[in-house]
Amino acid sequence: METLIDRAAAYFQDLQDRIVDGLTRLDGTPFRQDTWVRPGGGGGRTRVLSDGSVFEKAGVNFSDVVGEFRPEMAAALPGQGTRFRATGISLVLHPRSPHVPTVHANFRRLERETLGWFGGGADLTPYYLQRDDARHFHQTFKTACDRHDSILFPRFKAWCDDYFFLPHRGESRGIGGVFFDYLGAGAEAAAGRPAAPQSPIEHDPERTFDFVRALGDVFLDAYLPIVERRMAAPWTDLERRWQLLRRGRYVEFNLLYDRGTVFGLRTDGRVESILMSLPTEARWEYDHHPDAGSPEETMLKALRTGSDWAGS
Amino acid sequence: METLIDRAAAYFQDLQDRIVDGLTRLDGTPFRQDTWVRPGGGGGRTRVLSDGSVFEKAGVNFSDVVGEFRPEMAAALPGQGTRFRATGISLVLHPRSPHVPTVHANFRRLERETLGWFGGGADLTPYYLQRDDARHFHQTFKTACDRHDSILFPRFKAWCDDYFFLPHRGESRGIGGVFFDYLGAGAEAAAGRPAAPQSPIEHDPERTFDFVRALGDVFLDAYLPIVERRMAAPWTDLERRWQLLRRGRYVEFNLLYDRGTVFGLRTDGRVESILMSLPTEARWEYDHHPDAGSPEETMLKALRTGSDWAGS
Repeated sequence: METLIDRAAAYFQDLQDRIVDGLTRLDGTPFRQDTWVRPGGGGGRTRVLSDGSVFEKAGVNFSDVVGEFRPEMAAALPGQGTRFRATGISLVLHPRSPHVPTVHANFRRLERETLGWFGGGADLTPYYLQRDDARHFHQTFKTACDRHDSILFPRFKAWCDDYFFLPHRGESRGIGGVFFDYLGAGAEAAAGRPAAPQSPIEHDPERTFDFVRALGDVFLDAYLPIVERRMAAPWTDLERRWQLLRRGRYVEFNLLYDRGTVFGLRTDGRVESILMSLPTEARWEYDHHPDAGSPEETMLKALRTGSDWAGS
Repeated sequence: METLIDRAAAYFQDLQDRIVDGLTRLDGTPFRQDTWVRPGGGGGRTRVLSDGSVFEKAGVNFSDVVGEFRPEMAAALPGQGTRFRATGISLVLHPRSPHVPTVHANFRRLERETLGWFGGGADLTPYYLQRDDARHFHQTFKTACDRHDSILFPRFKAWCDDYFFLPHRGESRGIGGVFFDYLGAGAEAAAGRPAAPQSPIEHDPERTFDFVRALGDVFLDAYLPIVERRMAAPWTDLERRWQLLRRGRYVEFNLLYDRGTVFGLRTDGRVESILMSLPTEARWEYDHHPDAGSPEETMLKALRTGSDWAGS
């Protein structure tokens, strides 16, 4: 009989196909595909589009790996035992146009000897603030969450805001979306967050899996309409430079704070698949500040204050 | 009476002036200067040159700060007490030309309640391997070290190779130079390295300070002749692209592994001064490999194997 994690792996791989198909139809450029085997066990399939018409770099990675945690990793996670299996889909799409947001999504299941859980989420990183884009992205995930339990979206929206934050900058990476981890294994408590009322779905792995699938299934609906309505707009050198400066912040977050990146590098993951999240180009200018009243400043202020985007 | 750390701070600040003067003479572009006060105590003077004729970005920072360690920081360092004072000079110079190496140097003294020590070093990151440049850089520091004790250079050269290494890539950041820490406080032992025979200079803070000054004083001699003999050579788009890909690795090292960056961010240091080490532009291409037999591949092989550059 197929176990839950086998079915999760099959779902994530199928979702990779569907997302890559949707992006290829939009961009017109084929994805390169690399299947790889992890020396410690398992493997994956990395699909990357470089220098497309819409996407400067788009990576959609599926992996299903087994292995032994290093001791510090074993100690940092709930449950017991050093053997693990982890499967998931992880994607980062960096468009060419500064008017089209970068997006990240990740859905995964991790099992160690005594405990297994789902984690994941999706979050949007625009370079210029468009409230209708923000509302559409958040509303799409809110609707998917609400079908399962109305307590989920506000919790996972707040968790996303907490997680994708650069403390040294006092800025969010983007305008958020949803994020959750350890679902089925104590959720917030395991992540060191204040415990929140839990949903009954979290105590039933099948219902949790249904919920994760619901989010994965709406990913393209949440993102593609935004791309389609912004991709034709021309941009200036100043707008491109601002995009590259913000991509510098994206790099800072991923290398300084992102748990997925650290998990991958500490479990001897495939480096090129882990770091495909980094943009083709990024920029750092000493002590850069956008002009007062500029659209760049409006974006930055939004990243410093946050908002209830679904209701905005 | 002036304490040792007061005198060290005065030396580091004067060295900043001398280095900035030497670089300004070469580049022709003035440095911007920002003096800043740290809310927790002390402050610094950051000097940055952007978009110069020779340097794309050059940052030379002096700081002298006092504060309270956070508990995890206090536990990770030798000695006792949460109060500290740290003073030093830190510089990273990113030239425009891919034929001119990036260089980093840092000299510093840190004192906590029961113990104080010097740390620092200088290391070179070329984009194309030039054995005579590597030899000149290493030889200059070897000569300065050997005047104090001939056991110092081989130890600090090896420590530099260990430190500036990206385990996830299996590559060094550059071709090294010298690196040391906790000098006067147990040196290697405090850094979790195998204990090596110590030099008598390490048990005499005045002689240690003499040694640190000797390295600081030869920095321009080690680097400027390399710049002068490479800066006029033209470069191609391919060479620029390779430089930007290697700058991506520089960013990876600084954000994933560099202890100075982590120390700065965890002690609420001035973010723009800490991250001025990042290049103006960096690039990541999925699964990039230089062509077989190309100069780019020669460089990469050298970063994977290392060498006794001073004797090469």
